[in-house]
Amino acid sequence: MTDSSLSRLFNPQGIAIVGASSTPGKIGAMPVRLLLQHGYGGRIIPVNPRADAIAGLPALPGLDALDADVDLAILAVPAAHAAQALERARPGQVGAAVVFTSGFSETGAQGTAQQERLCAIARERGIRLLGPNCLGFMNVRRNVYATFSPAPANGIVAAGGIGMVSQSGAFGAYAYSMARERGLGLSHWISTGNEADIDVADCIEWLACDADTRVIMAYMEGCRDGAKLRRALAAARAAGKPVVVTKIGRTQAGAQAAASHTAALAGDDAVYDALFRQYGALRARTIEEFFNLGYALDTWKRPPQGRRLGIFTISGGVGALMADEAEDTGLALPEPAAEAQARLLERVPFASGRNPVDVTGQAVSEPGLLLATADDMLADGRYDALAVFLAAAGSSEALWPTFEAFARQMQARHPDVPLAISALFPPARRRELEQLGCLVFTDPSAAIRTIGAVAGLAAHTGSDVVDDAPTMPAAHTPPLLDAYNEVQAMALLRQAGLPASPCTLAADVDAAVCAVAELAATNGDAAPVVLKVVSPDITHKSDVGGVKLNIRGEAAVRQAYADIMAAVRQHRPDARIDGVLVAPMAPKGVECIAGVHCDPVFGPVVMFGLGGVFVEVLKDVSFRLAPFGRDEALAMIREIKGYALLQGARGAPPCDVDALADALAALSRFAHARRADFSSVEINPLLALPEGKGVVALDAVVIRGEGAAQTV
Amino acid sequence: MTDSSLSRLFNPQGIAIVGASSTPGKIGAMPVRLLLQHGYGGRIIPVNPRADAIAGLPALPGLDALDADVDLAILAVPAAHAAQALERARPGQVGAAVVFTSGFSETGAQGTAQQERLCAIARERGIRLLGPNCLGFMNVRRNVYATFSPAPANGIVAAGGIGMVSQSGAFGAYAYSMARERGLGLSHWISTGNEADIDVADCIEWLACDADTRVIMAYMEGCRDGAKLRRALAAARAAGKPVVVTKIGRTQAGAQAAASHTAALAGDDAVYDALFRQYGALRARTIEEFFNLGYALDTWKRPPQGRRLGIFTISGGVGALMADEAEDTGLALPEPAAEAQARLLERVPFASGRNPVDVTGQAVSEPGLLLATADDMLADGRYDALAVFLAAAGSSEALWPTFEAFARQMQARHPDVPLAISALFPPARRRELEQLGCLVFTDPSAAIRTIGAVAGLAAHTGSDVVDDAPTMPAAHTPPLLDAYNEVQAMALLRQAGLPASPCTLAADVDAAVCAVAELAATNGDAAPVVLKVVSPDITHKSDVGGVKLNIRGEAAVRQAYADIMAAVRQHRPDARIDGVLVAPMAPKGVECIAGVHCDPVFGPVVMFGLGGVFVEVLKDVSFRLAPFGRDEALAMIREIKGYALLQGARGAPPCDVDALADALAALSRFAHARRADFSSVEINPLLALPEGKGVVALDAVVIRGEGAAQTV
Repeated sequence: MTDSSLSRLFNPQGIAIVGASSTPGKIGAMPVRLLLQHGYGGRIIPVNPRADAIAGLPALPGLDALDADVDLAILAVPAAHAAQALERARPGQVGAAVVFTSGFSETGAQGTAQQERLCAIARERGIRLLGPNCLGFMNVRRNVYATFSPAPANGIVAAGGIGMVSQSGAFGAYAYSMARERGLGLSHWISTGNEADIDVADCIEWLACDADTRVIMAYMEGCRDGAKLRRALAAARAAGKPVVVTKIGRTQAGAQAAASHTAALAGDDAVYDALFRQYGALRARTIEEFFNLGYALDTWKRPPQGRRLGIFTISGGVGALMADEAEDTGLALPEPAAEAQARLLERVPFASGRNPVDVTGQAVSEPGLLLATADDMLADGRYDALAVFLAAAGSSEALWPTFEAFARQMQARHPDVPLAISALFPPARRRELEQLGCLVFTDPSAAIRTIGAVAGLAAHTGSDVVDDAPTMPAAHTPPLLDAYNEVQAMALLRQAGLPASPCTLAADVDAAVCAVAELAATNGDAAPVVLKVVSPDITHKSDVGGVKLNIRGEAAVRQAYADIMAAVRQHRPDARIDGVLVAPMAPKGVECIAGVHCDPVFGPVVMFGLGGVFVEVLKDVSFRLAPFGRDEALAMIREIKGYALLQGARGAPPCDVDALADALAALSRFAHARRADFSSVEINPLLALPEGKGVVALDAVVIRGEGAAQTV
Repeated sequence: MTDSSLSRLFNPQGIAIVGASSTPGKIGAMPVRLLLQHGYGGRIIPVNPRADAIAGLPALPGLDALDADVDLAILAVPAAHAAQALERARPGQVGAAVVFTSGFSETGAQGTAQQERLCAIARERGIRLLGPNCLGFMNVRRNVYATFSPAPANGIVAAGGIGMVSQSGAFGAYAYSMARERGLGLSHWISTGNEADIDVADCIEWLACDADTRVIMAYMEGCRDGAKLRRALAAARAAGKPVVVTKIGRTQAGAQAAASHTAALAGDDAVYDALFRQYGALRARTIEEFFNLGYALDTWKRPPQGRRLGIFTISGGVGALMADEAEDTGLALPEPAAEAQARLLERVPFASGRNPVDVTGQAVSEPGLLLATADDMLADGRYDALAVFLAAAGSSEALWPTFEAFARQMQARHPDVPLAISALFPPARRRELEQLGCLVFTDPSAAIRTIGAVAGLAAHTGSDVVDDAPTMPAAHTPPLLDAYNEVQAMALLRQAGLPASPCTLAADVDAAVCAVAELAATNGDAAPVVLKVVSPDITHKSDVGGVKLNIRGEAAVRQAYADIMAAVRQHRPDARIDGVLVAPMAPKGVECIAGVHCDPVFGPVVMFGLGGVFVEVLKDVSFRLAPFGRDEALAMIREIKGYALLQGARGAPPCDVDALADALAALSRFAHARRADFSSVEINPLLALPEGKGVVALDAVVIRGEGAAQTV
């Protein structure tokens, strides 16, 4: 599984620094100094034609002077010399190169050409490339400082289980400093810069296999290879390593800024959002959230296994504030067992035994009260996590033994209930609690939000992604048409396993009568039908008199047919007419819309929403990358704000949400399997019928792919 | 304006401590020790019948032994003795009492009775009461420590311009500690506890007049006197003192928790939310937001005067992250002048001159670059605030002189553009920048969110509230009916200045014909009408055949009348029938709903929303307390998520939003002026017509107040 060329890069036995310098402040001086200072265990080889020795180490004039293979070369020379310097390496001799130098693709066409030349040289010599225009990387556990970031100079981070990768050097340096301030331990810190070869996805995939890494934190601005990123996120999930990701460009303003920064479109953010949801990566909107999530996943041995939260407080008011946040974040607040509540009220008559459980300020004067009450609360396994608020009492050294004993005992007695404490502890005390495995937050709401975010992880088991499951062997695929009218589109969807309304194209009036008779044989004589003109030239059929509803009996069919033809010929004498579509009248249901479009990076993406104002005014839609299974489809349906309408709002019966999910999953399999043939599908309306009655597609538009669909 | 009895309380010249103790840890020992330790300048009089002296001060046996008037008595005795102790004061002798003691109304009926007795005794003696069951208060500038909170023992806060008041002692103590940690300066810190007399609103109103206070931060759980709270918020606004408020119970879970904590309903949170919006109080959802807002308002001499934000960064990626947050929070990001952009690109060819302006890491090597670029950017007054991100460079002591000079010069040259810097400065450096008037945030998104929140303040001028403006002199009010049918309801609204559809009640067929003729005279002969049965017993008129649409001409009117009567008699032979309503057919427009209900604390509240799924499924409504003017009505309209529909979504023309606002303002004036007479109004639909065509109320239900409406 592990990419050994990346292992050579990130865990090098020897490092050559091209452009090494002994002048402090020069970018070629930084890695030499850091490697020496922090006791890197491998060989350090300065390369500089104008020096015999750097920092006491003998220097070589160029990579061609190496006497043995070296895993890593750091390039700290101007852009004009970088390719030349690399060119001097013999094929197979250098495993990987980190290129600090800027002045490549980020500067325009000339720089892009230079970058391509650098890549070609590296490829020819079998050298993997990190950068150019990057701050390099650090392997914190093995003291590999292949970086010129000034961040370690202000203090180094602890070694730990977080693998951190950032496309942006500035973000990366800030994140490094934040990790240090917050006491998070890193396994690796990587900046990818221009990503000429190795990108964030490569790093995520490698970290997923790295034994030192338990949690992956990634910052990205865009992605050029969607399939690789999916593979990387799938690998992390398969390895049970949570991924926290920040991607810029959530909004129009942000996307514009990102585009002007990366000189490339950041891509459709909604698709990234779908991707992260689908693969269980936690998307952080802010740097603070990024760290709160990384902190929780790193500190807790395992995240909460469900969404049942206990709130335990010495302030009723702040308990309510926390309950507000819990509801916002979708956490449930079940009550403790009646016995536990009664026991608390015996101990403290003015306490509140429900959830939030408020033991009141009494906890400060009775040392045993906290533990006894929390013990009772957790006795019967009804909570997946516990959030505790200790108010200002956390700052009191006199009370520290009480709180320390509480945290220690809770961890020992209830190891399956992750614990987050909110209080103002002095930094040293905070670290002690963290070492016990507790989270500590100053802001109780941040504690709740963080629990809400990581509690979602347990639900993502990964069983739902069906990446390599085309529904239909190629041999059974009917021959492709150049274009599909709505009847053909519906037939195509029916073949794909979607419940499309049984419509028929009737080329003349007798065929229409015949089609109606056939429908009557299935649906019963009394069932009315609809007739619609079918023409590649007419989009808005009603506007030209091309639709007749509620037709019953042969005479009425003939009359309707004649009326339609007359009206259409009058309004649009030039229109080509394929005939009329004959279909049963739609039953009562909730109108939904399902669609597929082809994202240039990620391939086919399925969209779901409710009809009418929901899609058109409120943009209330959800997305998932094809293909996916029923569980993911259910998540996608529940995600929209108008979901209540499917649950039976306004006195209507609840809709058949399971059938709707099956239809979306089928659509996603079709979109994936036929991604080379079709660039878009829109089913509008997709009618959701009452529970047990299924769904039915009433109309569809299918657009052939014109080379747009890539094999993803 | 200032309540002098509260001034005596919060700025006492002498303090008697009843229950004073020399045993450390006792609640009666705390204030004595704190007052002495921090050098309170007034007289300190311990009261304790069992001691001659406390902490070196002579003690009195009871308040009756006082030789002179005293402004403040602190009661630190058990609940059973509190009333007794106060009873010993002679009328007029003690100005106010702070009652620490718990065991009053928070404990049930017996405690409530005790609390009432305490109040009566205080009232008889002209003593204002803070508490009981509170942590007391501090006047930080004058070293008044009338508290037993342990928070000051861990370090005292700086004196400053923030007046802080909290209903909850635990929240208050935590907030005190947070203020200390974040370096915020307080004028007063007040906890109100059970609020037997003085409540949070009293304190806000007093702080609004207090010369030492510039910003008010309030935490509340509920409010019993809505009019007082409105008056307090209005006073703060009139004094130009921003109010930051946290109120628990935003969600159902939070409201439940709050109710079980305060043993009283927290009230309808949507109404509080409306109140805060209306009076320009900034509502904070979390403790962190509470402090970010207080911090910004305290540090900046004046908040941004508009919503145009400049983002200035050394990292393009984080700039985009900040742009994302700016769009979320509704800040605009105008581009700098073309000249400023060109000048930056001359200096740093790979920079980005648009907004976010990214000077790149080059800023670190060129000390003058930051200032020169920011100067250019702000030269022509197109920004209301500037947010700067300096990445990890903030931790560098070598770069400190550059950053310090930048901040100092920016403040000097652009005093009207408040500056927020995001970086990881060491605490001492952060404080230096704050003393220059800059905000400093670790999280750049928090900086943007905070700017977004406080930038709203400038828009709230207070000119819009028309508290004392009943529309109609009592003399002109027509006599009240016991109940109103829809025709009478519409007439009532028409009198109130609302554009109600001109409907008439016709008692028989001839009257109906006559009414149609009258309408024809106004609307033109060809305009069709609608006929609806009017009966106090029939709600769903269509279900009983009681509605006929699109009627033209006398014959059709007679036929429709006869059909309606026949159908209604068949379906509901027992129904009382008042006649038929005759109205013009409704024009095309967007269906809205406007309503009024009477909140038990705040009086009449106006609701606005769009018809259909918007109200019924999405609960997409906004509220305001009556009465209000057009600007507030416009804000209320823009607040709903479906606002796009009124702007002309889906190819429809934009609606007459101004007329809609006028109608809501008129409704609010009616609701306020007639609050004693009517308990609820619902106008459904209120039809918004295309721009310039106004709005029209098509149907209304008005419910008489049955003693429910209070005079607010």
